[in-house]
Amino acid sequence: MKKIALKINKGIAQQSTINKNAIKNFRKKKKSFLNSNYYFEKILKGDIVALSQSITLVESSLQKHHKIAQEIIEKCLSHNKNKSLRIGITGVPGVGKSTFIESLGVKITKNKKLAVLAIDPSSENSKGSILGDKTRMYKLANDKNAFIRPSPSGGSLGGVSNKTRETIILCETFGFDIIFVETVGVGQSETAVNSMVDFFLLLILANAGDELQGIKRGIMEMADAIVITKDDGKNKKIINIAKSEYKNALHLFPIKKSKWNPKVLSCSALNKTGINEVMNTILDYEKFTKKNNFFQKKRKLQLINWMYESINFSLKRNFYNNKSIKEKIKFLENEIINMRISPFIASKILLKKYFL
Amino acid sequence: MKKIALKINKGIAQQSTINKNAIKNFRKKKKSFLNSNYYFEKILKGDIVALSQSITLVESSLQKHHKIAQEIIEKCLSHNKNKSLRIGITGVPGVGKSTFIESLGVKITKNKKLAVLAIDPSSENSKGSILGDKTRMYKLANDKNAFIRPSPSGGSLGGVSNKTRETIILCETFGFDIIFVETVGVGQSETAVNSMVDFFLLLILANAGDELQGIKRGIMEMADAIVITKDDGKNKKIINIAKSEYKNALHLFPIKKSKWNPKVLSCSALNKTGINEVMNTILDYEKFTKKNNFFQKKRKLQLINWMYESINFSLKRNFYNNKSIKEKIKFLENEIINMRISPFIASKILLKKYFL
Repeated sequence: MKKIALKINKGIAQQSTINKNAIKNFRKKKKSFLNSNYYFEKILKGDIVALSQSITLVESSLQKHHKIAQEIIEKCLSHNKNKSLRIGITGVPGVGKSTFIESLGVKITKNKKLAVLAIDPSSENSKGSILGDKTRMYKLANDKNAFIRPSPSGGSLGGVSNKTRETIILCETFGFDIIFVETVGVGQSETAVNSMVDFFLLLILANAGDELQGIKRGIMEMADAIVITKDDGKNKKIINIAKSEYKNALHLFPIKKSKWNPKVLSCSALNKTGINEVMNTILDYEKFTKKNNFFQKKRKLQLINWMYESINFSLKRNFYNNKSIKEKIKFLENEIINMRISPFIASKILLKKYFL
Repeated sequence: MKKIALKINKGIAQQSTINKNAIKNFRKKKKSFLNSNYYFEKILKGDIVALSQSITLVESSLQKHHKIAQEIIEKCLSHNKNKSLRIGITGVPGVGKSTFIESLGVKITKNKKLAVLAIDPSSENSKGSILGDKTRMYKLANDKNAFIRPSPSGGSLGGVSNKTRETIILCETFGFDIIFVETVGVGQSETAVNSMVDFFLLLILANAGDELQGIKRGIMEMADAIVITKDDGKNKKIINIAKSEYKNALHLFPIKKSKWNPKVLSCSALNKTGINEVMNTILDYEKFTKKNNFFQKKRKLQLINWMYESINFSLKRNFYNNKSIKEKIKFLENEIINMRISPFIASKILLKKYFL
């Protein structure tokens, strides 16, 4: 096809020199849309538009985009020097996540480049939240050393987190020194985020009493630091109670594989206090885990984990995009609903068809 | 093989009548271990040992057990009249789950048969909790109308929940009227449980203040009833605050597909109060959703969901049990760790090998 198109182009080109240039430009343009080298080179040169376009390609569900996206990632991966620091930040709505990221962010962008990526698999309810974030983080949004980018909402978590991982790689190749991966604390996504960052930070609102009850335990166990927000002076007593409660709670967990002793901090975006301590804690962690080699080990295990996720994602995509499966599956769903067949038998029939 | 064995058996049998009977018994015994009809018939007759053995077969990871387990399930499914009521019960450790289940359970077993199944994917930390449950639920454990059975801990959640689903089917065929599916509230498992029960009940400890913060939202959104435990009189004020807070919070969620208005209740195992109200709420829900057809619709959708989970589980099992994949995957993991290959390429190599 390509050859034929070229031949035709050549034929037309011979007709006039004006046409020749037009076709040249057309082919150049077409090339720029289809060649992974183009994006890769531009990313290396710090072209933010090319980075954005590459992320769009990564997030696209079109087959042709998938291929070029993979090529870009592959090029970036082989170029990646693993130099950045990846920080997961989570906390429920209302905890002051955007304000915190903005406060910490502007400190970072004084001498470093920062990318803020957001995963939000809870989709439906919070589709608008990211745009809200960009508005709320108005300083970062207008900072030339910062880049804010939401992950696509909806879709399977595996898919979304894969895409965030790939986006991290793109951002690192571009030259961002620090990557924030932000999630709304709804459970599943935190595990996914933890599997792609170096440092996991949990933001907490202090209220008297009920701190330690609830589903937060699993997420608390992952945290390398818990930061209590809105430490504005008037909540001093409550904050101190919360701090000591969280400290006690963290002691109850088994020692982390990193040997790192998770810290409990507090900060106030209003009074601009505590942010330096958070940054120092993160840098302490980096130093500590690089020294005991956990940092490097974790990254390697994350890469292996990525392989498994990638395989599982492909297995499913391959199956459900299979033409004969697609044709049969709706029919079988109907048979199940009408109690003419069990889900087991339906699954067996499809698998047999698939593996034939 | 079977035929040859039979022939040999026959040959030996001719030697003496004593031998003949011994062989008969032997073959019978062997048959009892391998024939799904045996288990199915016994389950239908209310043989609790056969039920337990069948669940063990379902939970087994041996290939030969898998086959017979599937056959038993298939027979049970086609016999299943969908007559039971399936209730998911969740709550964090310390909320008084066992005590609650015991209190509600002994009311049920007065005129109905109750099975209590427990899923615990948090594995490591709480491996012993189930045995603890059995000890704590001493009345139910000794009640001829009750059956307590833990799900295997560890393993993938998809696998575990599949097995719990199958266990539900077995219990229903056996004749249990009510099935409890109990989980420790750690996030993921609740979604899985919600996908296999009719009614979802969340147990909560009342403490002043911080009720509504935290990760409970996602789980709260699934709840058909929230029950505040330990309403023992002395906590009256706190309980009432919590009740109104939870009621307000539930109003903020979108209207449920079931059109059911989730209830907030409280109970005391100590004073034996509130348990009747919980039971009545569950029965109200059943009546309400059967009338508006949601009950039946949800069950059908759950069956379809089961097909998808079953497929996804098989796709993975098939892939990772493949001999050439097994041989190659450790090598590739090593290549990834040593940065000689990207997880992407590794996944591609394996998938290519698999689909060849």
